[in-house]
Amino acid sequence: MSDEQPQHSSNYGPPPVGCYMSAFSALFPSTFPSDMDPNIVACFRLADQDESGFIDDKGLQRALSSDNQSFSMRTVHMLIYLFTNSDIRKIGPKEFTSLFYSLQSLRAIFEKFDRGRTGKIGANELSEALLSQGIAVPPTVFELLVTKFDKTLGPIKSVDYENFILCCLVVKGLTEKFKEYDNMHTGSGRAAFTYGEFMFAVLPFLIT
Amino acid sequence: MSDEQPQHSSNYGPPPVGCYMSAFSALFPSTFPSDMDPNIVACFRLADQDESGFIDDKGLQRALSSDNQSFSMRTVHMLIYLFTNSDIRKIGPKEFTSLFYSLQSLRAIFEKFDRGRTGKIGANELSEALLSQGIAVPPTVFELLVTKFDKTLGPIKSVDYENFILCCLVVKGLTEKFKEYDNMHTGSGRAAFTYGEFMFAVLPFLIT
Repeated sequence: MSDEQPQHSSNYGPPPVGCYMSAFSALFPSTFPSDMDPNIVACFRLADQDESGFIDDKGLQRALSSDNQSFSMRTVHMLIYLFTNSDIRKIGPKEFTSLFYSLQSLRAIFEKFDRGRTGKIGANELSEALLSQGIAVPPTVFELLVTKFDKTLGPIKSVDYENFILCCLVVKGLTEKFKEYDNMHTGSGRAAFTYGEFMFAVLPFLIT
Repeated sequence: MSDEQPQHSSNYGPPPVGCYMSAFSALFPSTFPSDMDPNIVACFRLADQDESGFIDDKGLQRALSSDNQSFSMRTVHMLIYLFTNSDIRKIGPKEFTSLFYSLQSLRAIFEKFDRGRTGKIGANELSEALLSQGIAVPPTVFELLVTKFDKTLGPIKSVDYENFILCCLVVKGLTEKFKEYDNMHTGSGRAAFTYGEFMFAVLPFLIT
Protein backbone atom coordinates (compact mmCIF):
# COMPACT_ATOMS: atom_id res chain seq x y z
CA MET A 1 0.00 0.00 0.00
CA SER A 2 1.05 3.58 -0.46
CA ASP A 3 2.68 5.27 2.51
CA GLU A 4 0.84 8.46 1.71
CA GLN A 5 -2.00 9.37 4.02
CA PRO A 6 -5.50 9.80 2.62
CA GLN A 7 -6.24 13.43 1.84
CA HIS A 8 -9.57 14.87 2.88
CA SER A 9 -8.96 17.98 0.84
CA SER A 10 -8.88 16.04 -2.43
CA ASN A 11 -10.05 17.32 -5.77
CA TYR A 12 -11.46 13.87 -6.53
CA GLY A 13 -14.87 12.51 -5.86
CA PRO A 14 -15.21 9.99 -3.06
CA PRO A 15 -17.04 10.41 0.24
CA PRO A 16 -15.19 12.93 2.37
CA VAL A 17 -15.49 15.71 -0.18
CA GLY A 18 -19.18 16.44 0.12
CA CYS A 19 -19.74 15.16 3.65
CA TYR A 20 -20.10 17.06 6.86
CA MET A 21 -20.40 16.25 10.54
CA SER A 22 -24.02 16.27 11.52
CA ALA A 23 -25.15 18.04 14.71
CA PHE A 24 -27.43 15.10 15.46
CA SER A 25 -24.79 12.56 16.28
CA ALA A 26 -27.01 10.93 18.90
CA LEU A 27 -29.18 9.71 16.07
CA PHE A 28 -26.36 7.80 14.35
CA PRO A 29 -27.46 4.31 13.34
CA SER A 30 -26.65 1.88 16.11
CA THR A 31 -24.84 -0.37 13.67
CA PHE A 32 -21.87 2.02 13.66
CA PRO A 33 -19.42 1.37 16.51
CA SER A 34 -19.00 4.31 18.88
CA ASP A 35 -15.40 4.98 17.81
CA MET A 36 -16.34 5.31 14.14
CA ASP A 37 -14.92 8.25 12.14
CA PRO A 38 -17.72 10.85 12.36
CA ASN A 39 -17.10 11.83 8.74
CA ILE A 40 -18.18 8.38 7.63
CA VAL A 41 -21.25 8.33 9.83
CA ALA A 42 -22.29 11.79 8.67
CA CYS A 43 -21.75 10.83 5.06
CA PHE A 44 -23.81 7.69 5.47
CA ARG A 45 -26.68 9.50 7.16
CA LEU A 46 -26.68 12.19 4.52
CA ALA A 47 -27.09 9.58 1.80
CA ASP A 48 -29.60 7.47 3.76
CA GLN A 49 -32.45 9.86 3.05
CA ASP A 50 -35.26 7.53 4.12
CA GLU A 51 -33.35 6.60 7.30
CA SER A 52 -33.75 2.94 6.48
CA GLY A 53 -30.22 2.12 7.58
CA PHE A 54 -29.27 1.39 3.96
CA ILE A 55 -28.12 3.56 1.08
CA ASP A 56 -29.51 2.70 -2.35
CA ASP A 57 -27.60 3.05 -5.62
CA LYS A 58 -28.75 6.60 -6.32
CA GLY A 59 -27.87 7.66 -2.78
CA LEU A 60 -24.43 6.12 -3.06
CA GLN A 61 -23.88 7.79 -6.42
CA ARG A 62 -24.65 11.15 -4.80
CA ALA A 63 -22.43 10.37 -1.81
CA LEU A 64 -19.51 9.54 -4.11
CA SER A 65 -19.92 12.65 -6.24
CA SER A 66 -18.33 16.03 -5.97
CA ASP A 67 -18.30 19.07 -8.22
CA ASN A 68 -15.72 17.66 -10.61
CA GLN A 69 -16.24 13.93 -10.29
CA SER A 70 -19.13 11.55 -10.47
CA PHE A 71 -19.27 7.81 -10.78
CA SER A 72 -21.48 6.16 -13.40
CA MET A 73 -24.33 3.99 -12.16
CA ARG A 74 -22.48 0.99 -13.61
CA THR A 75 -19.51 1.72 -11.35
CA VAL A 76 -21.81 2.31 -8.39
CA HIS A 77 -23.46 -1.08 -8.94
CA MET A 78 -20.05 -2.72 -9.23
CA LEU A 79 -18.93 -1.08 -5.96
CA ILE A 80 -22.08 -2.16 -4.13
CA TYR A 81 -21.74 -5.69 -5.43
CA LEU A 82 -18.06 -5.98 -4.53
CA PHE A 83 -18.59 -4.65 -1.00
CA THR A 84 -21.85 -6.44 -0.18
CA ASN A 85 -21.58 -9.68 -2.18
CA SER A 86 -25.25 -9.32 -2.89
CA ASP A 87 -27.55 -8.07 -5.60
CA ILE A 88 -29.90 -6.05 -3.39
CA ARG A 89 -28.29 -2.84 -4.67
CA LYS A 90 -28.21 -1.32 -1.20
CA ILE A 91 -25.34 -0.88 1.19
CA GLY A 92 -25.39 -0.84 4.99
CA PRO A 93 -23.09 0.95 7.49
CA LYS A 94 -20.47 -1.78 7.82
CA GLU A 95 -19.98 -2.28 4.09
CA PHE A 96 -20.16 1.46 3.47
CA THR A 97 -17.33 1.95 5.96
CA SER A 98 -15.15 -0.59 4.10
CA LEU A 99 -15.98 1.10 0.81
CA PHE A 100 -15.22 4.55 2.28
CA TYR A 101 -11.78 3.53 3.52
CA SER A 102 -11.00 1.66 0.33
CA LEU A 103 -11.87 4.64 -1.87
CA GLN A 104 -10.02 7.01 0.44
CA SER A 105 -6.90 4.89 0.15
CA LEU A 106 -7.22 4.51 -3.63
CA ARG A 107 -7.81 8.22 -4.06
CA ALA A 108 -4.61 8.99 -2.17
CA ILE A 109 -2.70 6.60 -4.43
CA PHE A 110 -4.24 8.13 -7.55
CA GLU A 111 -3.39 11.66 -6.43
CA LYS A 112 0.17 10.61 -5.71
CA PHE A 113 0.64 9.50 -9.30
CA ASP A 114 -1.53 12.15 -10.99
CA ARG A 115 1.28 14.62 -10.57
CA GLY A 116 -0.04 17.17 -13.02
CA ARG A 117 -3.59 17.03 -11.56
CA THR A 118 -4.98 16.09 -14.97
CA GLY A 119 -7.53 13.65 -13.61
CA LYS A 120 -5.83 10.73 -15.35
CA ILE A 121 -2.60 8.76 -15.03
CA GLY A 122 -0.41 7.15 -17.68
CA ALA A 123 0.39 3.47 -18.07
CA ASN A 124 3.70 3.74 -16.18
CA GLU A 125 1.95 5.42 -13.27
CA LEU A 126 -0.78 2.77 -13.27
CA SER A 127 1.90 0.11 -13.04
CA GLU A 128 3.56 1.93 -10.12
CA ALA A 129 0.19 2.46 -8.46
CA LEU A 130 -0.57 -1.27 -8.63
CA LEU A 131 2.91 -2.12 -7.35
CA SER A 132 2.38 0.26 -4.43
CA GLN A 133 -0.57 -1.93 -3.49
CA GLY A 134 1.56 -5.07 -3.68
CA ILE A 135 0.19 -6.11 -7.06
CA ALA A 136 2.72 -7.15 -9.71
CA VAL A 137 1.02 -8.44 -12.83
CA PRO A 138 2.98 -9.91 -15.76
CA PRO A 139 3.61 -7.48 -18.66
CA THR A 140 1.07 -9.11 -21.00
CA VAL A 141 -1.60 -8.89 -18.31
CA PHE A 142 -0.72 -5.27 -17.65
CA GLU A 143 -1.06 -4.39 -21.35
CA LEU A 144 -4.48 -6.02 -21.32
CA LEU A 145 -5.47 -3.98 -18.26
CA VAL A 146 -4.49 -0.70 -19.87
CA THR A 147 -6.40 -1.63 -23.01
CA LYS A 148 -9.50 -2.46 -21.00
CA PHE A 149 -9.46 0.53 -18.66
CA ASP A 150 -8.24 3.30 -20.96
CA LYS A 151 -11.48 5.09 -21.80
CA THR A 152 -9.80 8.39 -22.56
CA LEU A 153 -9.34 7.45 -26.26
CA GLY A 154 -6.38 9.81 -26.36
CA PRO A 155 -3.16 9.21 -28.31
CA ILE A 156 -1.32 8.23 -25.11
CA LYS A 157 -2.62 5.36 -23.01
CA SER A 158 -4.03 6.64 -19.75
CA VAL A 159 -6.67 5.81 -17.17
CA ASP A 160 -9.06 8.28 -15.56
CA TYR A 161 -9.99 8.26 -11.87
CA GLU A 162 -13.18 6.20 -12.16
CA ASN A 163 -11.48 3.54 -14.27
CA PHE A 164 -8.47 3.56 -11.96
CA ILE A 165 -10.78 2.68 -9.07
CA LEU A 166 -12.43 -0.09 -11.07
CA CYS A 167 -9.07 -1.40 -12.30
CA CYS A 168 -7.62 -1.58 -8.78
CA LEU A 169 -10.71 -3.23 -7.30
CA VAL A 170 -10.95 -5.78 -10.12
CA VAL A 171 -7.25 -6.66 -10.10
CA LYS A 172 -7.08 -6.81 -6.29
CA GLY A 173 -10.23 -8.90 -6.17
CA LEU A 174 -9.05 -11.38 -8.79
CA THR A 175 -5.60 -11.56 -7.18
CA GLU A 176 -7.14 -12.35 -3.79
CA LYS A 177 -9.34 -15.01 -5.38
CA PHE A 178 -6.27 -16.54 -7.00
CA LYS A 179 -4.39 -16.62 -3.69
CA GLU A 180 -7.36 -18.24 -2.00
CA TYR A 181 -7.00 -21.23 -4.32
CA ASP A 182 -3.21 -21.03 -4.75
CA ASN A 183 -1.40 -24.03 -3.25
CA MET A 184 1.29 -21.61 -2.00
CA HIS A 185 -1.30 -19.00 -0.83
CA THR A 186 1.07 -16.28 -2.01
CA GLY A 187 0.25 -15.93 -5.67
CA SER A 188 3.43 -17.72 -6.70
CA GLY A 189 2.01 -21.23 -6.91
CA ARG A 190 -0.74 -22.80 -8.96
CA ALA A 191 -4.43 -22.38 -8.19
CA ALA A 192 -6.72 -25.30 -8.99
CA PHE A 193 -10.43 -24.73 -9.47
CA THR A 194 -13.44 -26.84 -10.32
CA TYR A 195 -15.60 -25.31 -13.05
CA GLY A 196 -18.11 -23.94 -10.55
CA GLU A 197 -15.38 -22.50 -8.32
CA PHE A 198 -13.70 -20.88 -11.31
CA MET A 199 -16.86 -19.24 -12.63
CA PHE A 200 -18.00 -18.11 -9.19
CA ALA A 201 -14.55 -16.70 -8.42
CA VAL A 202 -14.18 -14.59 -11.54
CA LEU A 203 -17.67 -13.52 -12.67
CA PRO A 204 -18.25 -10.93 -9.89
CA PHE A 205 -15.23 -8.99 -11.16
CA LEU A 206 -15.94 -9.16 -14.87
CA ILE A 207 -19.41 -7.80 -15.34
CA THR A 208 -21.04 -4.57 -14.32
CA MET B 1 -26.13 -25.54 -30.03
CA SER B 2 -29.72 -24.89 -31.00
CA ASP B 3 -31.11 -26.86 -33.89
CA GLU B 4 -32.97 -23.80 -35.10
CA GLN B 5 -31.64 -22.18 -38.25
CA PRO B 6 -30.60 -18.52 -38.19
CA GLN B 7 -33.39 -16.28 -39.39
CA HIS B 8 -32.57 -13.50 -41.81
CA SER B 9 -36.00 -11.97 -41.29
CA SER B 10 -35.32 -11.26 -37.64
CA ASN B 11 -36.66 -8.35 -35.68
CA TYR B 12 -33.35 -8.13 -33.82
CA GLY B 13 -30.35 -6.11 -34.71
CA PRO B 14 -27.30 -7.99 -35.97
CA PRO B 15 -25.81 -7.87 -39.42
CA PRO B 16 -28.25 -9.42 -41.87
CA VAL B 17 -31.02 -6.95 -41.08
CA GLY B 18 -29.55 -3.86 -42.65
CA CYS B 19 -27.30 -5.55 -45.19
CA TYR B 20 -27.84 -6.06 -48.89
CA MET B 21 -26.11 -7.82 -51.73
CA SER B 22 -23.91 -5.34 -53.52
CA ALA B 23 -23.98 -5.13 -57.31
CA PHE B 24 -20.21 -4.73 -57.30
CA SER B 25 -19.25 -8.18 -56.17
CA ALA B 26 -16.09 -8.11 -58.28
CA LEU B 27 -14.75 -5.52 -55.91
CA PHE B 28 -15.05 -7.72 -52.82
CA PRO B 29 -11.91 -7.59 -50.72
CA SER B 30 -9.58 -10.38 -51.72
CA THR B 31 -9.33 -11.53 -48.12
CA PHE B 32 -12.78 -13.11 -48.35
CA PRO B 33 -12.77 -16.62 -49.82
CA SER B 34 -14.72 -16.96 -53.06
CA ASP B 35 -17.43 -19.12 -51.50
CA MET B 36 -18.20 -16.59 -48.77
CA ASP B 37 -21.85 -15.77 -48.03
CA PRO B 38 -22.44 -12.63 -50.13
CA ASN B 39 -24.54 -11.14 -47.32
CA ILE B 40 -21.48 -11.05 -45.11
CA VAL B 41 -19.25 -9.55 -47.76
CA ALA B 42 -21.84 -6.90 -48.63
CA CYS B 43 -22.31 -6.09 -44.96
CA PHE B 44 -18.58 -5.75 -44.44
CA ARG B 45 -18.12 -3.53 -47.47
CA LEU B 46 -21.02 -1.33 -46.43
CA ALA B 47 -19.41 -0.74 -43.06
CA ASP B 48 -15.87 -0.37 -44.44
CA GLN B 49 -16.51 3.16 -45.64
CA ASP B 50 -12.89 4.10 -46.25
CA GLU B 51 -12.27 0.75 -48.04
CA SER B 52 -9.30 0.11 -45.78
CA GLY B 53 -10.15 -3.56 -45.40
CA PHE B 54 -11.04 -2.97 -41.74
CA ILE B 55 -14.17 -1.80 -39.96
CA ASP B 56 -13.68 0.52 -37.01
CA ASP B 57 -15.83 0.56 -33.88
CA LYS B 58 -18.31 3.12 -35.17
CA GLY B 59 -18.66 1.23 -38.46
CA LEU B 60 -19.27 -2.02 -36.62
CA GLN B 61 -21.82 -0.35 -34.37
CA ARG B 62 -23.70 0.82 -37.47
CA ALA B 63 -23.41 -2.60 -39.09
CA LEU B 64 -24.88 -4.28 -36.00
CA SER B 65 -27.75 -1.82 -35.69
CA SER B 66 -31.25 -1.92 -37.06
CA ASP B 67 -34.34 0.17 -36.48
CA ASN B 68 -35.18 -1.39 -33.15
CA GLN B 69 -31.80 -2.50 -31.86
CA SER B 70 -28.42 -0.97 -31.38
CA PHE B 71 -25.40 -2.11 -29.45
CA SER B 72 -23.63 0.22 -27.04
CA MET B 73 -20.03 1.16 -27.83
CA ARG B 74 -19.05 -0.84 -24.73
CA THR B 75 -20.53 -3.97 -26.28
CA VAL B 76 -18.99 -3.17 -29.67
CA HIS B 77 -15.52 -2.86 -28.10
CA MET B 78 -16.06 -6.12 -26.25
CA LEU B 79 -17.09 -7.87 -29.47
CA ILE B 80 -14.07 -6.52 -31.36
CA TYR B 81 -11.74 -7.54 -28.57
CA LEU B 82 -13.17 -11.04 -28.27
CA PHE B 83 -13.03 -11.70 -32.01
CA THR B 84 -9.66 -10.06 -32.75
CA ASN B 85 -7.71 -10.61 -29.51
CA SER B 86 -6.30 -7.16 -30.01
CA ASP B 87 -6.87 -3.61 -28.88
CA ILE B 88 -6.69 -1.95 -32.29
CA ARG B 89 -10.47 -1.46 -32.22
CA LYS B 90 -10.78 -2.52 -35.83
CA ILE B 91 -12.01 -5.77 -37.31
CA GLY B 92 -10.96 -7.42 -40.59
CA PRO B 93 -12.92 -9.73 -42.93
CA LYS B 94 -11.97 -13.03 -41.30
CA GLU B 95 -12.84 -11.94 -37.76
CA PHE B 96 -15.95 -10.13 -38.96
CA THR B 97 -17.14 -13.38 -40.55
CA SER B 98 -16.72 -15.25 -37.25
CA LEU B 99 -18.55 -12.48 -35.44
CA PHE B 100 -21.32 -12.45 -38.03
CA TYR B 101 -21.97 -16.20 -37.74
CA SER B 102 -21.72 -16.11 -33.96
CA LEU B 103 -24.27 -13.31 -33.67
CA GLN B 104 -26.52 -14.96 -36.24
CA SER B 105 -26.51 -18.16 -34.21
CA LEU B 106 -27.08 -16.36 -30.90
CA ARG B 107 -29.88 -14.29 -32.38
CA ALA B 108 -31.64 -17.46 -33.51
CA ILE B 109 -31.35 -18.89 -30.01
CA PHE B 110 -32.62 -15.66 -28.44
CA GLU B 111 -35.63 -15.53 -30.79
CA LYS B 112 -36.44 -19.14 -30.00
CA PHE B 113 -36.76 -18.31 -26.32
CA ASP B 114 -38.25 -14.81 -26.65
CA ARG B 115 -41.60 -16.36 -27.42
CA GLY B 116 -43.63 -13.22 -26.83
CA ARG B 117 -41.26 -11.08 -28.95
CA THR B 118 -40.71 -8.73 -25.99
CA GLY B 119 -37.00 -8.21 -26.70
CA LYS B 120 -36.03 -9.92 -23.45
CA ILE B 121 -36.05 -13.40 -21.98
CA GLY B 122 -36.64 -14.59 -18.42
CA ALA B 123 -34.22 -16.45 -16.19
CA ASN B 124 -35.65 -19.87 -17.08
CA GLU B 125 -35.27 -19.13 -20.77
CA LEU B 126 -31.71 -17.91 -20.25
CA SER B 127 -30.91 -21.18 -18.52
CA GLU B 128 -32.44 -23.14 -21.41
CA ALA B 129 -30.62 -20.97 -23.93
CA LEU B 130 -27.27 -21.68 -22.28
CA LEU B 131 -28.06 -25.39 -22.06
CA SER B 132 -28.89 -25.39 -25.77
CA GLN B 133 -25.31 -24.25 -26.32
CA GLY B 134 -23.97 -27.07 -24.16
CA ILE B 135 -23.34 -24.81 -21.17
CA ALA B 136 -24.55 -26.03 -17.78
CA VAL B 137 -23.47 -23.70 -14.99
CA PRO B 138 -24.06 -24.51 -11.30
CA PRO B 139 -27.18 -22.82 -9.79
CA THR B 140 -25.18 -20.28 -7.74
CA VAL B 141 -23.25 -19.24 -10.85
CA PHE B 142 -26.47 -18.96 -12.81
CA GLU B 143 -28.03 -16.70 -10.16
CA LEU B 144 -24.94 -14.50 -10.37
CA LEU B 145 -25.22 -14.33 -14.15
CA VAL B 146 -28.86 -13.25 -14.01
CA THR B 147 -28.05 -10.63 -11.38
CA LYS B 148 -25.19 -9.26 -13.43
CA PHE B 149 -26.85 -9.27 -16.86
CA ASP B 150 -30.36 -8.16 -15.86
CA LYS B 151 -30.29 -4.50 -16.82
CA THR B 152 -34.05 -4.28 -17.28
CA LEU B 153 -34.60 -3.31 -13.61
CA GLY B 154 -38.08 -4.80 -13.86
CA PRO B 155 -39.86 -6.75 -11.11
CA ILE B 156 -39.12 -10.06 -12.86
CA LYS B 157 -35.53 -11.03 -13.64
CA SER B 158 -34.91 -10.89 -17.36
CA VAL B 159 -32.12 -10.23 -19.84
CA ASP B 160 -32.42 -8.10 -22.97
CA TYR B 161 -30.89 -9.00 -26.33
CA GLU B 162 -27.65 -7.06 -25.97
CA ASN B 163 -26.97 -8.48 -22.51
CA PHE B 164 -27.93 -11.96 -23.71
CA ILE B 165 -25.22 -11.71 -26.37
CA LEU B 166 -22.67 -10.51 -23.80
CA CYS B 167 -23.71 -13.18 -21.30
CA CYS B 168 -23.36 -16.00 -23.84
CA LEU B 169 -20.00 -14.79 -25.15
CA VAL B 170 -18.56 -14.30 -21.66
CA VAL B 171 -19.82 -17.62 -20.31
CA LYS B 172 -18.80 -19.56 -23.43
CA GLY B 173 -15.39 -17.89 -23.48
CA LEU B 174 -14.70 -18.55 -19.80
CA THR B 175 -15.95 -22.13 -20.12
CA GLU B 176 -13.58 -22.74 -23.04
CA LYS B 177 -10.70 -21.21 -21.06
CA PHE B 178 -11.52 -23.47 -18.14
CA LYS B 179 -11.54 -26.56 -20.35
CA GLU B 180 -8.20 -25.54 -21.84
CA TYR B 181 -6.62 -25.84 -18.37
CA ASP B 182 -8.90 -28.60 -17.06
CA ASN B 183 -7.02 -31.85 -16.44
CA MET B 184 -10.04 -33.73 -17.87
CA HIS B 185 -10.46 -31.27 -20.79
CA THR B 186 -14.21 -31.62 -20.39
CA GLY B 187 -15.07 -29.11 -17.70
CA SER B 188 -15.58 -31.84 -15.12
CA GLY B 189 -12.05 -31.87 -13.70
CA ARG B 190 -9.90 -29.24 -12.01
CA ALA B 191 -8.10 -26.50 -13.87
CA ALA B 192 -4.76 -25.35 -12.46
CA PHE B 193 -3.41 -21.92 -13.35
CA THR B 194 -0.36 -19.87 -12.48
CA TYR B 195 -1.22 -16.29 -11.51
CA GLY B 196 -0.32 -14.95 -14.95
CA GLU B 197 -2.28 -17.66 -16.72
CA PHE B 198 -5.29 -17.02 -14.50
CA MET B 199 -5.32 -13.27 -15.05
CA PHE B 200 -4.66 -13.58 -18.78
CA ALA B 201 -7.41 -16.20 -19.11
CA VAL B 202 -10.14 -14.17 -17.44
CA LEU B 203 -9.40 -10.48 -18.08
CA PRO B 204 -10.34 -10.55 -21.79
CA PHE B 205 -13.90 -11.25 -20.63
CA LEU B 206 -13.99 -8.19 -18.41
CA ILE B 207 -16.73 -5.92 -19.70
CA THR B 208 -15.64 -2.35 -19.26
